[in-house]
Amino acid sequence: MAEMMKATIFVEPGRVEVEEKAIPNIGPNDALMRITTTTICGTDVHILKGEYPVESGLTIGHEPVGVIEKLGANVQGYQEGQRVIAGAICPSFSSYACQDGCSSQDGGHHGHGYKPMGGWRFGNTINGAQAEYLLVPDAQANLAPVPDGLTDEQVLMCPDIMSTGFAGAESANIKIGDIVAVFAQGPIGLCATAGARLRGAGMIIVVDGVDARLDMARQMGADIALDFNKVDVVEEILKITGGRGVDASIEALGLQSTFEAALRVLKPGGTLSSLGVYSEDLSIPLGAFCAGLGDHKIVTSLCPGGKERMRRLMNIIAHDRIDLGPLVTHRYALEDIVEAYDLFSHQRDGVLKVAITT
Amino acid sequence: MAEMMKATIFVEPGRVEVEEKAIPNIGPNDALMRITTTTICGTDVHILKGEYPVESGLTIGHEPVGVIEKLGANVQGYQEGQRVIAGAICPSFSSYACQDGCSSQDGGHHGHGYKPMGGWRFGNTINGAQAEYLLVPDAQANLAPVPDGLTDEQVLMCPDIMSTGFAGAESANIKIGDIVAVFAQGPIGLCATAGARLRGAGMIIVVDGVDARLDMARQMGADIALDFNKVDVVEEILKITGGRGVDASIEALGLQSTFEAALRVLKPGGTLSSLGVYSEDLSIPLGAFCAGLGDHKIVTSLCPGGKERMRRLMNIIAHDRIDLGPLVTHRYALEDIVEAYDLFSHQRDGVLKVAITT
Amino acid sequence: MAEMMKATIFVEPGRVEVEEKAIPNIGPNDALMRITTTTICGTDVHILKGEYPVESGLTIGHEPVGVIEKLGANVQGYQEGQRVIAGAICPSFSSYACQDGCSSQDGGHHGHGYKPMGGWRFGNTINGAQAEYLLVPDAQANLAPVPDGLTDEQVLMCPDIMSTGFAGAESANIKIGDIVAVFAQGPIGLCATAGARLRGAGMIIVVDGVDARLDMARQMGADIALDFNKVDVVEEILKITGGRGVDASIEALGLQSTFEAALRVLKPGGTLSSLGVYSEDLSIPLGAFCAGLGDHKIVTSLCPGGKERMRRLMNIIAHDRIDLGPLVTHRYALEDIVEAYDLFSHQRDGVLKVAITT
Amino acid sequence: MAEMMKATIFVEPGRVEVEEKAIPNIGPNDALMRITTTTICGTDVHILKGEYPVESGLTIGHEPVGVIEKLGANVQGYQEGQRVIAGAICPSFSSYACQDGCSSQDGGHHGHGYKPMGGWRFGNTINGAQAEYLLVPDAQANLAPVPDGLTDEQVLMCPDIMSTGFAGAESANIKIGDIVAVFAQGPIGLCATAGARLRGAGMIIVVDGVDARLDMARQMGADIALDFNKVDVVEEILKITGGRGVDASIEALGLQSTFEAALRVLKPGGTLSSLGVYSEDLSIPLGAFCAGLGDHKIVTSLCPGGKERMRRLMNIIAHDRIDLGPLVTHRYALEDIVEAYDLFSHQRDGVLKVAITT
Repeated sequence: MAEMMKATIFVEPGRVEVEEKAIPNIGPNDALMRITTTTICGTDVHILKGEYPVESGLTIGHEPVGVIEKLGANVQGYQEGQRVIAGAICPSFSSYACQDGCSSQDGGHHGHGYKPMGGWRFGNTINGAQAEYLLVPDAQANLAPVPDGLTDEQVLMCPDIMSTGFAGAESANIKIGDIVAVFAQGPIGLCATAGARLRGAGMIIVVDGVDARLDMARQMGADIALDFNKVDVVEEILKITGGRGVDASIEALGLQSTFEAALRVLKPGGTLSSLGVYSEDLSIPLGAFCAGLGDHKIVTSLCPGGKERMRRLMNIIAHDRIDLGPLVTHRYALEDIVEAYDLFSHQRDGVLKVAITT
Repeated sequence: MAEMMKATIFVEPGRVEVEEKAIPNIGPNDALMRITTTTICGTDVHILKGEYPVESGLTIGHEPVGVIEKLGANVQGYQEGQRVIAGAICPSFSSYACQDGCSSQDGGHHGHGYKPMGGWRFGNTINGAQAEYLLVPDAQANLAPVPDGLTDEQVLMCPDIMSTGFAGAESANIKIGDIVAVFAQGPIGLCATAGARLRGAGMIIVVDGVDARLDMARQMGADIALDFNKVDVVEEILKITGGRGVDASIEALGLQSTFEAALRVLKPGGTLSSLGVYSEDLSIPLGAFCAGLGDHKIVTSLCPGGKERMRRLMNIIAHDRIDLGPLVTHRYALEDIVEAYDLFSHQRDGVLKVAITT
Repeated sequence: MAEMMKATIFVEPGRVEVEEKAIPNIGPNDALMRITTTTICGTDVHILKGEYPVESGLTIGHEPVGVIEKLGANVQGYQEGQRVIAGAICPSFSSYACQDGCSSQDGGHHGHGYKPMGGWRFGNTINGAQAEYLLVPDAQANLAPVPDGLTDEQVLMCPDIMSTGFAGAESANIKIGDIVAVFAQGPIGLCATAGARLRGAGMIIVVDGVDARLDMARQMGADIALDFNKVDVVEEILKITGGRGVDASIEALGLQSTFEAALRVLKPGGTLSSLGVYSEDLSIPLGAFCAGLGDHKIVTSLCPGGKERMRRLMNIIAHDRIDLGPLVTHRYALEDIVEAYDLFSHQRDGVLKVAITT
Repeated sequence: MAEMMKATIFVEPGRVEVEEKAIPNIGPNDALMRITTTTICGTDVHILKGEYPVESGLTIGHEPVGVIEKLGANVQGYQEGQRVIAGAICPSFSSYACQDGCSSQDGGHHGHGYKPMGGWRFGNTINGAQAEYLLVPDAQANLAPVPDGLTDEQVLMCPDIMSTGFAGAESANIKIGDIVAVFAQGPIGLCATAGARLRGAGMIIVVDGVDARLDMARQMGADIALDFNKVDVVEEILKITGGRGVDASIEALGLQSTFEAALRVLKPGGTLSSLGVYSEDLSIPLGAFCAGLGDHKIVTSLCPGGKERMRRLMNIIAHDRIDLGPLVTHRYALEDIVEAYDLFSHQRDGVLKVAITT
């Protein structure tokens, strides 16, 4: 008889539950991870609400921190008991898409190898990380050892929001001395701010409507924090930049209004780097887009995964380039995760990220 | 009393005329070009119709081929009598924008140095090329000698449509073996097709509704030419690519429908390179955009100018990489240019480009 | 008892032989390919001469064209009997090096994941392709189906010399209208010439000492072919370019003299793309290097592998961008390969490449 | 009669002197700067020693901080009395080389427009900055206003060593989380260290033989500082990186030994970014270069100039990204500059940079 574990499953729109499930059996290219810490993502809230459909009964969550419990026969160079993380996106790295530099859009091994968001498997197309155990597919490519001396919470942002936020800054192609605006300072926007700082931005202007988030943004490297409740942010940013606009703007929310503002403050020749998950068709205003003649770039990024990406991000933390610790504002045990979802989805009590421990 | 010349001026929406005007006096950093051949651009038709506003009395046109008549005191390394062209976009190359790699968005020397489309001066903010003489500002940066043995018509596309079309292919970041779709095969789309071929595309699919343009596209390097009157082009391109989509798509018209199709045929991770001049807000369809998670890039390009760009383009022609001669379908004298506008603006008689000689 | 096959093995310096060997057994991530056509590479000649050491008894060769004989249990999306090729370099694509964009330097799954030239396994660290059967490791990442209608000889250059030569042009970062010099027009140099043409070079100058190779270079896209026996090539190239030098130069031989000439003809700011395998320390002449202040780039490339690369290269051939057929000058059966080595290693009879069939 | 000023001139090898010279007359595209602060560069010491030849009588120095005294008739957007700096390299920005992205190799307006190090004019081909007044050519492109609130000493490193050191980091193409080694921690090496930090390096290892410089390196962002007198640095860096090597190494001295060490510690696929001025042919060791098959890049950079570069660097300082103040260890009046040369050229008293005021 199979051994059992606790797992957070999607039941139906509006309902997730912690249930007993069999600990998964692994194949030769998989690994089994025992989860020690995980967290809840904004995407999980979309799943909870039924806005992003997944199968009923699926274990959700995609931010695993833990220990190797068992290794498939073909997985080399790791030891059982080793502390590891895996990216929220866990591509095969051998498909056409992956070899072509689009690993987050990994379509697997049939057909042409591309699938929109196909690299995102945990808690989407296979069982996820909000459980006591997690099957990691293509483990050779996805298990990333945690450097000695780093705690679970210190690396908890690596699998998703740090990788995503940094990708926003990387795709913005920031050059030394650039002026960068970041719209929305939730967890991903805060990481985008930190990423812009790490790439050498000379001035970082952030926008949000919550004081605590604007304060945290300053901690993450923002020079100027604007509250959209108090100023017309487009006007203000154009004023700050002497009418020139910013070199790059990063959208980190997923609304028409933030997307549009990000374009309106952009200099001709600038890059709008979009991270948000939109829920309706976007409109590009003609004037701000210079009728198509402004040498603008609009770039979107899905969270990069894989063990090399994770290694780099943990390296950044290990060498004190950034401390994402303050983003963990609340802590729950796995059995209380429904409560954590309630807090997180309603953004109560100044919550940024919640650590879930097993 | 000033010597006089013939010049094509914008009078009012719907009316351009050839008038007598004084030959311009030049300053120390300018040159005076005697125009031998020029042409009419789609943008000029927008000006004629009043859709793009310019001052009444302005000489229009921005595609100059001719001879140096006079050089300003500071302009070195040229001789009077030398055959030259100048780009449609003639930046200063010394502003902040130019030094920052955005020379087409040159805002000049006051303030922050950026201005949307600011590098476009001929026939827009200063007198243009559809005249017997043309003042070339920042002549040191903009006069490009024509290699021996090339005719006026051979280099007539360099100032604008060749530079623009090629920029569409360059911004698409085409890699060897890429599959590329080009939407619309007017003069700029045809040059984008030729540019995609030059960058190493492995398969080029073009779309238009006019047989003659589809035929010409094949001459410019297209592998597959689709008539949007006969097939659902999105469906067809997805079928041709086995459902994968194209690596890059180039929009060369400026309509919502072509922009949208260019996105719908794009693989996740692909680049939509837009050249069209749009006349209303664009809509980005949510599904084709993968809700912002598809690692897509949308890039716009304004015609690059300057003597180095012109040198490179003429080099391409001089070494028989491409023959844009067939694009010149009609020829008129300058005094008959109103007739040429009539033909060109109504796209009669299979016209692609019209050579205007003085 | 194991079934047997013919294989070309390295015996000792100066001696290769065709022997009977057991057909390899495959693991779950491998495939067994039945070779229908292969060829001999310059590197194989280094191995034959003992200049590049491999184990005695190793099957050599790394350019496989054939048919899938058997698939490992985990390899999906292929059928037995399908025509395929595999790259000379067959990386795992899951190591740190591969995920970091250095797949040719794949160090496998232990330690830090980097190994110089580690992606080159066939005929180097594992048995190679000059045999009736070949074990392809990490088959999911490396088996590339041959498009319908292409013959073995048409795709025979893809696994190595086409991928290598093109990489020389790609790493040279050629822009439309660049002037490019390619030093040496053996098989790889000829492919570099073709690659430079495909990337949009405006003028290609090639250098060799053999008339037939200079003729073939013109067929591959060279504009000017210089015989180093007849002219001082550095002087000549500087004269042709008006003293400016070339935008990029490609070294395709591996000698101090060609490396040095490639630097001497380079403009300040230009890129020297090196493909040659050197056999002694290289010297960078101070003057040509502007004492380190010339904004020069020196870039080396090892043949890129993987099924996506192979797919792209075959796509180029399928769409008639280039015909490498003429490079196959001689044909032998596998049992006569020793004779083929003799011809090829002495470069007799105008040999460029030899097709070996089973 | 011309008004006179003090200027530091090169007399003969081993001798510079402060002399009286006429204040220069300016042309329409020039500006006259009154120097308030300048400094001495390592290159000036080469000039002093006769190792880099300049004309006898030339005013030397290329790091100007001061005030606009007079503007040429064509120079717009500035006011007399405005505080400005100009880059050590002051290109025209209109030559072919400049438009092609190689502004430091600006060959001016005759011929093909390229000249090795041609953008370096001050104290090399025209009179320089160690004087009371400086003629700035192409002033429109080169005068960079100092932001309010920054002192002369705060921006004194911008014209040369900050721009050069940062270029070393930029050319190294550092990605977030990279491991970077910087060889030599003189003023330029220290700026390269700061630049690597600004680009997001995850670990920075620096090498020097002087304790004070290693201490200063830690202040500039180094994680690990190695004394080459105490350890075998190649061995040590390989040990630190677990045998993998660094992603990028920066050479900041100009010796065979540092160049070679920078290559020996480099991972396959890594970039060696060279800033040093070499005085003899360089040797590339075959093994460390993987015989040309290691996918290595060797890149050199000459200090980027122009007002946009200067604007960005001053922006970095204005927003407290870095404090280069501590690099100014000594201060002299212009009339005592010979004494300052003596101190600086003998690296006495822990000197890093010397501020010279007028």
